Amino acid sequence: MNPECESLCRKLIPASYVDQGRDSRRSRENKIRLLLEKRKLPEDGWDDADIEMLLSELSVMDSNNFPGNCGAGEREGRVVSGIVARRHFRLAHGIGRSGDITAIQPKAAGSSILSVMTNAMALDIIRLAGIKSTKSCFVVPMATGMSLVLCFLTLRQLRPDGKYIIWSRIDQKSCFKAILTAGFKPIVIENKLEGDELRTDVEAIKEKIAELGAGNILCLYTTTSCFAPRTPDRLDEVAKICKTEDIPHVVNNAYGLQMSKCCHLVQEAARVGRVDVFVQSTDKNFMVPVGGSIIAGFDEKLIEKISQTYPGRASASPSIDLFVTFLTLGAKGYKSLLQKRKDVFKHLKEKLSALAEKYDERLLETPHNPISMVMSLEKFDSEADSKLVTELGSMLFTRCVSGARVVPRGVTKEIGDHVFQGFQSHTNSYPCAYLTAAAAIGMTKDDVDLFIKRLDKVLAKVQKSKDGNGGNTQTVET
Amino acid sequence: MNPECESLCRKLIPASYVDQGRDSRRSRENKIRLLLEKRKLPEDGWDDADIEMLLSELSVMDSNNFPGNCGAGEREGRVVSGIVARRHFRLAHGIGRSGDITAIQPKAAGSSILSVMTNAMALDIIRLAGIKSTKSCFVVPMATGMSLVLCFLTLRQLRPDGKYIIWSRIDQKSCFKAILTAGFKPIVIENKLEGDELRTDVEAIKEKIAELGAGNILCLYTTTSCFAPRTPDRLDEVAKICKTEDIPHVVNNAYGLQMSKCCHLVQEAARVGRVDVFVQSTDKNFMVPVGGSIIAGFDEKLIEKISQTYPGRASASPSIDLFVTFLTLGAKGYKSLLQKRKDVFKHLKEKLSALAEKYDERLLETPHNPISMVMSLEKFDSEADSKLVTELGSMLFTRCVSGARVVPRGVTKEIGDHVFQGFQSHTNSYPCAYLTAAAAIGMTKDDVDLFIKRLDKVLAKVQKSKDGNGGNTQTVET
Amino acid sequence: MNPECESLCRKLIPASYVDQGRDSRRSRENKIRLLLEKRKLPEDGWDDADIEMLLSELSVMDSNNFPGNCGAGEREGRVVSGIVARRHFRLAHGIGRSGDITAIQPKAAGSSILSVMTNAMALDIIRLAGIKSTKSCFVVPMATGMSLVLCFLTLRQLRPDGKYIIWSRIDQKSCFKAILTAGFKPIVIENKLEGDELRTDVEAIKEKIAELGAGNILCLYTTTSCFAPRTPDRLDEVAKICKTEDIPHVVNNAYGLQMSKCCHLVQEAARVGRVDVFVQSTDKNFMVPVGGSIIAGFDEKLIEKISQTYPGRASASPSIDLFVTFLTLGAKGYKSLLQKRKDVFKHLKEKLSALAEKYDERLLETPHNPISMVMSLEKFDSEADSKLVTELGSMLFTRCVSGARVVPRGVTKEIGDHVFQGFQSHTNSYPCAYLTAAAAIGMTKDDVDLFIKRLDKVLAKVQKSKDGNGGNTQTVET
Amino acid sequence: MNPECESLCRKLIPASYVDQGRDSRRSRENKIRLLLEKRKLPEDGWDDADIEMLLSELSVMDSNNFPGNCGAGEREGRVVSGIVARRHFRLAHGIGRSGDITAIQPKAAGSSILSVMTNAMALDIIRLAGIKSTKSCFVVPMATGMSLVLCFLTLRQLRPDGKYIIWSRIDQKSCFKAILTAGFKPIVIENKLEGDELRTDVEAIKEKIAELGAGNILCLYTTTSCFAPRTPDRLDEVAKICKTEDIPHVVNNAYGLQMSKCCHLVQEAARVGRVDVFVQSTDKNFMVPVGGSIIAGFDEKLIEKISQTYPGRASASPSIDLFVTFLTLGAKGYKSLLQKRKDVFKHLKEKLSALAEKYDERLLETPHNPISMVMSLEKFDSEADSKLVTELGSMLFTRCVSGARVVPRGVTKEIGDHVFQGFQSHTNSYPCAYLTAAAAIGMTKDDVDLFIKRLDKVLAKVQKSKDGNGGNTQTVET
Repeated sequence: MNPECESLCRKLIPASYVDQGRDSRRSRENKIRLLLEKRKLPEDGWDDADIEMLLSELSVMDSNNFPGNCGAGEREGRVVSGIVARRHFRLAHGIGRSGDITAIQPKAAGSSILSVMTNAMALDIIRLAGIKSTKSCFVVPMATGMSLVLCFLTLRQLRPDGKYIIWSRIDQKSCFKAILTAGFKPIVIENKLEGDELRTDVEAIKEKIAELGAGNILCLYTTTSCFAPRTPDRLDEVAKICKTEDIPHVVNNAYGLQMSKCCHLVQEAARVGRVDVFVQSTDKNFMVPVGGSIIAGFDEKLIEKISQTYPGRASASPSIDLFVTFLTLGAKGYKSLLQKRKDVFKHLKEKLSALAEKYDERLLETPHNPISMVMSLEKFDSEADSKLVTELGSMLFTRCVSGARVVPRGVTKEIGDHVFQGFQSHTNSYPCAYLTAAAAIGMTKDDVDLFIKRLDKVLAKVQKSKDGNGGNTQTVET
Repeated sequence: MNPECESLCRKLIPASYVDQGRDSRRSRENKIRLLLEKRKLPEDGWDDADIEMLLSELSVMDSNNFPGNCGAGEREGRVVSGIVARRHFRLAHGIGRSGDITAIQPKAAGSSILSVMTNAMALDIIRLAGIKSTKSCFVVPMATGMSLVLCFLTLRQLRPDGKYIIWSRIDQKSCFKAILTAGFKPIVIENKLEGDELRTDVEAIKEKIAELGAGNILCLYTTTSCFAPRTPDRLDEVAKICKTEDIPHVVNNAYGLQMSKCCHLVQEAARVGRVDVFVQSTDKNFMVPVGGSIIAGFDEKLIEKISQTYPGRASASPSIDLFVTFLTLGAKGYKSLLQKRKDVFKHLKEKLSALAEKYDERLLETPHNPISMVMSLEKFDSEADSKLVTELGSMLFTRCVSGARVVPRGVTKEIGDHVFQGFQSHTNSYPCAYLTAAAAIGMTKDDVDLFIKRLDKVLAKVQKSKDGNGGNTQTVET
Repeated sequence: MNPECESLCRKLIPASYVDQGRDSRRSRENKIRLLLEKRKLPEDGWDDADIEMLLSELSVMDSNNFPGNCGAGEREGRVVSGIVARRHFRLAHGIGRSGDITAIQPKAAGSSILSVMTNAMALDIIRLAGIKSTKSCFVVPMATGMSLVLCFLTLRQLRPDGKYIIWSRIDQKSCFKAILTAGFKPIVIENKLEGDELRTDVEAIKEKIAELGAGNILCLYTTTSCFAPRTPDRLDEVAKICKTEDIPHVVNNAYGLQMSKCCHLVQEAARVGRVDVFVQSTDKNFMVPVGGSIIAGFDEKLIEKISQTYPGRASASPSIDLFVTFLTLGAKGYKSLLQKRKDVFKHLKEKLSALAEKYDERLLETPHNPISMVMSLEKFDSEADSKLVTELGSMLFTRCVSGARVVPRGVTKEIGDHVFQGFQSHTNSYPCAYLTAAAAIGMTKDDVDLFIKRLDKVLAKVQKSKDGNGGNTQTVET
Repeated sequence: MNPECESLCRKLIPASYVDQGRDSRRSRENKIRLLLEKRKLPEDGWDDADIEMLLSELSVMDSNNFPGNCGAGEREGRVVSGIVARRHFRLAHGIGRSGDITAIQPKAAGSSILSVMTNAMALDIIRLAGIKSTKSCFVVPMATGMSLVLCFLTLRQLRPDGKYIIWSRIDQKSCFKAILTAGFKPIVIENKLEGDELRTDVEAIKEKIAELGAGNILCLYTTTSCFAPRTPDRLDEVAKICKTEDIPHVVNNAYGLQMSKCCHLVQEAARVGRVDVFVQSTDKNFMVPVGGSIIAGFDEKLIEKISQTYPGRASASPSIDLFVTFLTLGAKGYKSLLQKRKDVFKHLKEKLSALAEKYDERLLETPHNPISMVMSLEKFDSEADSKLVTELGSMLFTRCVSGARVVPRGVTKEIGDHVFQGFQSHTNSYPCAYLTAAAAIGMTKDDVDLFIKRLDKVLAKVQKSKDGNGGNTQTVET
């Protein structure tokens, strides 16, 4: 309501009541003002009514919602289904323009503001998470894998001779496929077994660079967040090499934003060496539906170049989700989620360790992995037969335990032309079969307890059947 | 309600009333059954309640909505904001898997069914629109430009020596940028002026192939839907060349699905020659928010290969929008929209023609373009000064007329390393400045009348100021 | 967004785009301003986005939504379920106060404005419907029956000696029960058969008044809308008696607002005689869910007195529904609905008449009933056995035909101490069994055709079974 | 999805995923089954998805949502606005029938089930709250005041000679007005001052009965929940009198359900004497929007008689709100809310006591009132001038403190023909001015602390101005 409407309300009901209503309205408007002014996550989270009010304000600014709009083109933001219009808050024009995914759309001022503000809050939250010197970032409506493709394609324009991507092995399909999709030749660096952990083989990287020639290498490609017993890559050491050799450094920080350790690793790597771009998933770090990632870096120009490489407009949906989620959480809410995750991680470690002991197994020593942990399955495995181990996996699946992975030995997997031995274990031959579990953002202590309870039951059942015969053996890859 | 619940209801209220309710429920379930069975657009559109019921059914099948789910991984479909959860109907896992964007997700049976069914209905609607021999297609949560990049990247894997993409010029940034982003060298074929129309120079294409060598060419890249005076490319002739020369043929069918002419062009080209893949925008053809496209073709294997090239999961949002919209429209509804568009096109042609005459201009003869038309602006333009023409554009913008484009002569535009003369006009030097307007799906006769009325006012005003001085001259590119 | 926020937006995106957004916003605000200023139905209906924006504005003005509210009482508008909060747009305080259902609530400025405006628009629409001299009205969250009770209870306070309510018989339970519930003695005036029609027996009323003494009579109680062959009461003649005898006149105008004839009857009665209050249902006249009615009259004081008789606050839900519906329709939309109803009535008359002829029955002559009509069922009925007729009713029910009523002869019904002969037919003994159907607001010609088709089938089936034996005979009263 | 649809899904995606989805669905259906079977509050609350699924199931059972419905009547559940349809989950037929507000509607099986189940859960929660021998209850879409009117009107039918209602004074307008609205003569029994408390004068009641004659008394009318220093009435003693004298006993249990003390009082009164009916507000006890109440009692016949006295259908909205809220809370959730309220009450008592001390005032001794408490305002009041006290009230209002009431001495109020001295204080002349505050369900400790902080500031400010001049003095009655 504008002042004129307020005056009219004063003729309907006593002025003092209108004034209180106006104050309430102003206090909400003030939140919006502060947000636009500071371009940061608000300290305190907003309630749903605040957020819906802002979305409605933005929606009104898009041309498809102009009362007198008249479209004579082929893309006018028309939406035929009411269900669809409402779920997008009548924002129909997406984000970006033919020129650039971060460009402002003349037809969609509201969507543009939403996009700009989401990117601004994303930058704030990345810094807040620990990567303090991040200069620029943008949300892209593609998951991590395709976003990495976009980064590689941009680097090709800057480095036309780059043919190879040196990649410290991590057994996750989409991040490897990103290399192939972008049209490069992957050079796989096997991890080194150090104690129970699998760690980056920095020397092997150096050797490969010497062998291939720095100028032929598009980039070094490392990973932070991963399943134990693999650990986050030695980013700082790789970053130093990149600096010395003048090779770009792309970091897959998939779900690393939720861990201060990973964030500090990226931050430190950028300080002592070279990090060009790091990519993180929105669903895994911010509990929104799958579909977006944040591409970030320490050089505004490069990040802008990547955004310009994206040809055309794009879905606003992941930006809307993040926008709403950032405002819902506020800085306090996000910090509190991060703290809770740490507590849950500790809790999971204790419980899983105790369970391992019960079955004469052990929790592997993986101190460098801040999110995932590993329980050995040596007693359940045998050279001759890995049936029990795979059975265990499918039993967890049918008991609605998701995310915990049973990793048998000796799995071979072909991706493109490449054959991976010991797939899923990040190395050709890990000493034992095992089970991983992770304490990710949003998990609760109750989840942990339920998981341990079910795992206990399943282990007990499988142990029994070791002497008898097993159940079904269907393998499920999640 | 299952039969058990129905029995219990019979104890609460008279059985005959429960029976009627059950029949109503069954009749809705029957719609679902038919849909799953036929895997086609239903003949009649569904109402919102039907659709919401099905979405709720599907949602229940995703693991994040399992009552007893227990997640111990890093991506469990957790959603922190209620607003976000509701707008996605609690479908959080996206579509696809690390292997393939069309792969089934074990964690998300409901989302997977939605995705499979959306692709099935998309195939049905493409055939229904006129490209009858289409074999396979899938929805990808990226707009046309990035989807074309994905197609080019896939072709590289099949045709590693392909360096060039031969492209019949169309002045639309993102489709040209798609070539650069994918890392290929664009070979621009200028259009030929035939009467008022700009048409594909088939001979020039042949010459270029001979010059570069068929084996070095990744693909020929044509376009159907475009602004007049350019016309849809001579797809059939290009397709024949592709067949003869064994070169892939990629068609940008951006908003061509809504026009039977464009569809028949694609269909005919595939019949007489070679079309590998054609890509269409979801927002422009189906009135959903920006963000998705459909990649389709005549060879299941190739389409599958493209879907497998997409690394990792992806947003389900564009699929959800399409799913809802397809069910809302039904086959009848979509056909009726197509028919209405034809009628509106005719109406626009008559009105704009009359208006042109009024100002001593003319509607250009562009019989091959079934959606866009052109009114000359010769009287408003002068060799010396194109100010009036650009002013006209900005006046339309401030009057909330969107989509109609004023194209001055002599605009130069650099994209990547390429310099385009006469940009926006699809040719280096079109004989006159002009204005384009299009009759796209969803436009109404009222929209046309409003557009003509405003354009009339603006032309009158500009005509007046021709002798006096102009207003603001800000150029707005929409 | 206030001007300050707009300025900040200009730093995010180009000013001219912000300006267009602001203009769009203003244009919506302007609608709100006009509404508050004129306090009438807008001429053109609003779209959902307009309405939701206004509801959100009003919601912000209620104390339970104040960002800094602090409640230390027993009714603070707290809502525990998110589903419930959202469905009421976070308006939780209801309407009215302990003093008066139309009183302004200090805790709920927004709800109060909504209530005041709903009453204002209700007054406008009543006048627009034809009762032009209506002075005052208010929406009450009770259906017609209970609202009539409230009117009678108010009249008792003004007329403490009134013991009797003289009521022209209409066989609708709740309007008769309203007399009993309010604690009065009903004096039933039987209808006179004039041709096929049942009409008010004005002479009998006069006689009763003479017999009982005008001072002992609380009010005369008439009805407009009803099922044929009963017709709207002779309101004008009754009104004249009321004026002469100084007896209040209460009119049950249940669904009469949708018929110009009924409205003119009320208007004319007030002009030539006395009408104190007339009550109409919100669901039946405005297509909202059941639960509200509008109490209206020609004397502001009396209407105010009735509103003050309602003790305490009340549900805002029916007011919200009406508010939204009035804005959705606009004056044009409502008028168009009224016109469509007339057309459908004519269509139904033609179709039902033809059907009657087919079965050798006839459409009774009921020219005074503008909404309901009657088809005789003489051939299906027999002195000895009314089984076929009741069977016909239940067959329609199981075929999802609702609203059409089969009225057998000779039904006896006891309500309170009163025994009605020939119940449902508004008279002790109507000459024949029959079927009624009505053409109410919202009905379409397609509905009519479907109804006729099913009725035809049912009649055919029953006719067949006249010689054999019937199906089930369950009677269903709807 | 029925089994047939599940089979079809198995052709789309792997069977084991469909099975998990089906199990999830069954587990939700099982909740529904248990609910319908037990007709009690579920032990654990349901999540929103569960509830929405059930509402959608019920909605499908109403005739207005039948795919093939054909309405030929005047009330067919048509809803013109999409906003309105959605907010009611497409349930449009309300509850009840002309015969009875608890009657089953043939046109609306779903709404009927919802209504029956809401009443069943209401009965369960009343028992759970402590009134264990309650036999029957129903939800009525009217607030407490009008519901009491309905009770009185029903009693009139059973007790036609009853003219008087003996009422133990409580200064709350609507409950007094209920007597007048129903058409009875109120006999006001003044409270007795015992210590700081105002308590029921049982002797005075007995004297009045003797004076008026038991047969002329419609009922005794007592109250549980109230503002201190008044206390809940001596229900047990009054109930004994009712039993002895054979007079009905109506209890206004407005917000008493949230306090075990009040519930036990009703339960005990029914055990040792006579309680016919007790009425409670839905918004105050269950945190739903204003608009409903629950009428309950110990004799099924009487409660049925009251429900039958309600003439006609009624809004389902309050029942829907309760239905959703009951399922959201579950028994555990409600019990936990009750416990929290007790804790907050204690907290408020401590804080307010300390604050009183600070200002040389005191917390009055009102041990019999379990929800409300009183701080004296003797130092702020003077014989000559009560300006400061009223000012204090308006200062709290403008600071968004609602619910806390400042009660000056000497206010006179006329309701109907009755003049109340010392209005708001429940007695003609309470010894001092004071402020009341209540710890109601949903209040948090944070609310208490905020309230105390603001009250402290206001008191400090008023204290200062005692020597200087005051601010505005507008009185606000909330």
